[in-house]
Amino acid sequence: MIRTVFWKDDTVVMIDQKALPYEERHLVCRRYEEVIAAIKDLSIRGAPAIGVATAMGIALGTLHLSPVSGGEMKAAFNRICHEFSQARPTARNLFWAVERMRRCFDETFASGAQTVKKVLVAEAIRICEEDIAINRQMGIHGRLVIKDGDHILTHCNAGALATAGYGTALGVIRAAREEGKTLHVYMDETRPILQGARLTAWELVKENIPATLITDSMAGFLMKQGKIALVIVGADRIAANGDVANKIGTYSLAVLAKENHIPFYVAAPLSTIDMGIKDGDGIPIEERNGEEVLTFHGVRTAPEGVMVYNPAFDVTPNHYITAIITEAGVAVRPYEETIARLIDKNCQGSGES
Amino acid sequence: MIRTVFWKDDTVVMIDQKALPYEERHLVCRRYEEVIAAIKDLSIRGAPAIGVATAMGIALGTLHLSPVSGGEMKAAFNRICHEFSQARPTARNLFWAVERMRRCFDETFASGAQTVKKVLVAEAIRICEEDIAINRQMGIHGRLVIKDGDHILTHCNAGALATAGYGTALGVIRAAREEGKTLHVYMDETRPILQGARLTAWELVKENIPATLITDSMAGFLMKQGKIALVIVGADRIAANGDVANKIGTYSLAVLAKENHIPFYVAAPLSTIDMGIKDGDGIPIEERNGEEVLTFHGVRTAPEGVMVYNPAFDVTPNHYITAIITEAGVAVRPYEETIARLIDKNCQGSGES
Repeated sequence: MIRTVFWKDDTVVMIDQKALPYEERHLVCRRYEEVIAAIKDLSIRGAPAIGVATAMGIALGTLHLSPVSGGEMKAAFNRICHEFSQARPTARNLFWAVERMRRCFDETFASGAQTVKKVLVAEAIRICEEDIAINRQMGIHGRLVIKDGDHILTHCNAGALATAGYGTALGVIRAAREEGKTLHVYMDETRPILQGARLTAWELVKENIPATLITDSMAGFLMKQGKIALVIVGADRIAANGDVANKIGTYSLAVLAKENHIPFYVAAPLSTIDMGIKDGDGIPIEERNGEEVLTFHGVRTAPEGVMVYNPAFDVTPNHYITAIITEAGVAVRPYEETIARLIDKNCQGSGES
Repeated sequence: MIRTVFWKDDTVVMIDQKALPYEERHLVCRRYEEVIAAIKDLSIRGAPAIGVATAMGIALGTLHLSPVSGGEMKAAFNRICHEFSQARPTARNLFWAVERMRRCFDETFASGAQTVKKVLVAEAIRICEEDIAINRQMGIHGRLVIKDGDHILTHCNAGALATAGYGTALGVIRAAREEGKTLHVYMDETRPILQGARLTAWELVKENIPATLITDSMAGFLMKQGKIALVIVGADRIAANGDVANKIGTYSLAVLAKENHIPFYVAAPLSTIDMGIKDGDGIPIEERNGEEVLTFHGVRTAPEGVMVYNPAFDVTPNHYITAIITEAGVAVRPYEETIARLIDKNCQGSGES
């Protein structure tokens, strides 16, 4: 099984996704700043994976603190949390992880620095383990939407590499396969960073799941030709009303799916849902360096003098989404109600308030 | 002015579009087989440019024939025409050019080989000159759809480089600019061959038309954000009912434009219209080598073992198209009637039957 990020001997180890599919190598982060750098430069990406890396990075940073007072400890911890919060703006799980680690810190703060450090490391490891369990649970709920023989379209990478392991959208696909269903995956290459071509293809080939690569512009034509039974993608942040921020191009797929009467599913853990944001308009959309669009593998594609626009995500309004698959169950319209119900159920189930 | 393809000293000269935007160099074809190779390997592309190159290539091939009899001449000419017909399957203008050169050959055949050769060269040069005039005429009709200050989205390259010069979709944009309108063009990079990033950007930068490059997956989000006033693209083949085959991704743009209440225009000469094909289902769609998708500037993007699908074009049903801009005027729904009327008018105007 692919383990995207894990804790080992007081370091945070992650698959270096920038090197895929050419080379399978690990990054070993010994300082929390290295974890932040890995999040920023996309060595690790995908909202749930960023969440796990953030939790582990905060634990790592706290582990190396040598405060002389409780106040100093708290200030240093806050600084680390703040730095992580600045790493990337859209992925909800990053902020969710900061909040959870902060809560953990606050709850154990009175027990002293050594306890805090131990508890935070344990919490980060727990978040990682939970993420895989959550993905498997999502798979159990989601696999019902896949029929034997289906051709499925996915975008970007919402696989093991976007999580601690197993995956959200690809987790659902894996779960359907584990049930014995035969299926075939079409994946968009996902310019500019090519997560589809580089990462999703790598995962699917590794597991012998039949997979066909297309450019982003081909997805609509496939749908029109009747070649796609369903679309399933991940999410970077979901508003309380079910509007979904995900990799740029997701909105277009959702519109094309609707036009062609194809169900469009989003698979994401509850930690991707931001109940503090009413609708998609409130979700901050990261704009990345234009060089990503202007170049490929360091080779310039366009002439000097051209301008560039490079939003990393877009927002898909809830009415295009057939269902949102979470670990607590499947939400359908009206999402305001069904999402709130799932979160409620989950809090009661886990004993959280 | 950019001259994409022209006749010079019994050679066919063309801008080598594979070298753009890095280098501006010309290919000089001394044998008709070199013209076919240039069409096949996309050194020249765009339906009208392919049409002109085909006419010139047939003239070039005929010029070098040394037949001992009229029958031999005819057989050799047919062979050349047949070879051009096999070069690429979708661009209507290729077949239109073959038919026109064939008609010219048949009309002058009785006058002997030397006359035939002279007349065919003259006809090919005329087709080239006409193409530019047609584009300018298209611009005069089409510029009315562009308002001062508009942000326009285009896909692939339907510019000077897709024609003998001036362009179809970019011709309309040029004409609006020549009228004094300020405007801004967003262009999709157009994977896999990047005609948008390499060619359209090159043309627009060259003429100081404000231009912003995006990946294909960003177009929908731009439309949703209200950043696009209209979409205008070219065409590779148009069926009698107005269904349009154009660069892969066009269909998606048309659906997204409709969903966002944005007008969607196609600019193409009447020679792109195939009255022999009732609707888009009859248009042959070229599938190209998967390597185009699997690589980016020669660098492999996806792991070994992944399958690939690479249709070069898609078909946009007529009901997504606001208007088709031609040199004879602008066709709107119902296209069956308006297209037939424009072709009729054009035949009467030019004295053709």
